[in-house]
Amino acid sequence: MSSVIPGWFSEISPMWPGEAHSLKVEKILFQEKSDYQNVMVFQSATYGKVLVLDGVIQLTERDECAYQEMITHLPLCSIPNPKKVLVIGGGDGGVLREVARHSSVEQIDICEIDGMVVDVSKKFFPDVAIGYDDPRVNLHIGDGVAFMKNAPEGTYDAVIVDSSDPIGPAQELFEKPFFASVARALRPGGVVCTQAESIWLHMHIIEDIVTNCRQIFKGSVNYAWTTVPTYPSGVIGFMLCSTEGPAVDFKHPVNPIDANESACKSSRPLKFYNSEIHAAAFCLPSFAKKVIDSKTT
Amino acid sequence: MSSVIPGWFSEISPMWPGEAHSLKVEKILFQEKSDYQNVMVFQSATYGKVLVLDGVIQLTERDECAYQEMITHLPLCSIPNPKKVLVIGGGDGGVLREVARHSSVEQIDICEIDGMVVDVSKKFFPDVAIGYDDPRVNLHIGDGVAFMKNAPEGTYDAVIVDSSDPIGPAQELFEKPFFASVARALRPGGVVCTQAESIWLHMHIIEDIVTNCRQIFKGSVNYAWTTVPTYPSGVIGFMLCSTEGPAVDFKHPVNPIDANESACKSSRPLKFYNSEIHAAAFCLPSFAKKVIDSKTT
Repeated sequence: MSSVIPGWFSEISPMWPGEAHSLKVEKILFQEKSDYQNVMVFQSATYGKVLVLDGVIQLTERDECAYQEMITHLPLCSIPNPKKVLVIGGGDGGVLREVARHSSVEQIDICEIDGMVVDVSKKFFPDVAIGYDDPRVNLHIGDGVAFMKNAPEGTYDAVIVDSSDPIGPAQELFEKPFFASVARALRPGGVVCTQAESIWLHMHIIEDIVTNCRQIFKGSVNYAWTTVPTYPSGVIGFMLCSTEGPAVDFKHPVNPIDANESACKSSRPLKFYNSEIHAAAFCLPSFAKKVIDSKTT
Repeated sequence: MSSVIPGWFSEISPMWPGEAHSLKVEKILFQEKSDYQNVMVFQSATYGKVLVLDGVIQLTERDECAYQEMITHLPLCSIPNPKKVLVIGGGDGGVLREVARHSSVEQIDICEIDGMVVDVSKKFFPDVAIGYDDPRVNLHIGDGVAFMKNAPEGTYDAVIVDSSDPIGPAQELFEKPFFASVARALRPGGVVCTQAESIWLHMHIIEDIVTNCRQIFKGSVNYAWTTVPTYPSGVIGFMLCSTEGPAVDFKHPVNPIDANESACKSSRPLKFYNSEIHAAAFCLPSFAKKVIDSKTT
């Protein structure tokens, strides 16, 4: 456990040099090395249970709603009647939980590389892993890059890439060949949403991702972002792209789930996402807008 | 210096128990106790120079643009031709720098309680304290509560309350008598913008502020927020209220500074604020919207 404050977990990484967010640890609940990474779960003093992969916080019970709801509903609310959805990564099951809110969805495939993440989530994060209980879910443990390459052409309405940072096992998920295989697996006018780092920390990475996406996705290419307090710099971004075909206007959701009675009346109402915050997520600070617009237009 | 990681500054406070953001320190440049608080400046490894009051980060050179631009232009871009502006707190001068972008402004009063903050800013943060160079600025060192109480009635177009947290010297700036004196000093249809904590950490404080404002300000009462990586939870909010008189629709800026040629062509272009991010700042996550809407309608 990388801790610089005794009794605290501190998130130190070359991805955000010179700063560290720390959470007070009540108890370490799990700590093991999988085939791919170090997996740790601890009970924090004020953020509930925390999942850490290779020293980097993936989710806390207190703020996971922001990330899971946004990475899922930004793409799914932007297209009418999504039916087939693929999740790459996202082994904790939180994205599945959110996809399952959409009653139009018939099939939810997920490919997670690390079975230990799935097991640990089911054991320690039942309110997140509840996504696996949905009968529409098909879990594949394996390499997302290979899965994507072998996916049948023109199949999915939406692909959600819920990856960790581009340093480590997720590296290839930020590269052009992977994006090309995503575009191939999507139906015309299908959409992808991929985790795309922080505008405060990683504008150079974001620039590259936008450039790659612009070359691969012939529909629209947009950057959105949201607040997640336990992610470095407090924000996380998403690339939202569509393939050639029926036009997708990501900034104006056509499939508003917050107006959907079944979603609102469920026992687990949305905590974070609504149509207003959807549209707002595409508004960028000037310093980021300048860079991103120069790559997308 | 409260440091839990040797060589790092860690921000630990009962205002955000169980978590701490830390910055690597290159060199402590200033450390003294004023009549009101501990004042520290250090050179950080990756966020430039950092101003700390009573152990809480007030600004870093790397992200101060977000806070200063938003707390200033959210109110000033919401009314046509602001002429008289009062800043309470804000001794670093950053809000003055932003107010000065508005060519319609004729008079900028500022009342800061702690002269040491002004001096330290002028010495260590010239790009922030540059706000004091504007000839329209009148600096008063004194108690903002008393200054507000004695301000002539119906004078100001806008009051900006750039305070520290409600525990410490700024406490009274969050209470009803202060808001009443702000309302009295504003012209009909005048606006106030006050620092209003984090939706992730302080919903109970925000609830109280909204309730107080609703009782005092008979025009509109709105909550907005933005990202500031070095503030706890990575976000900070603002209460935006107007007095009875000409209606103010904060969500639709009538005085868009980013379209203003003189502001854009200046040697210091806006880094963060634009009209899109202005409107987006009023879109709240569902968990916050539910609480705030229940108090404002």
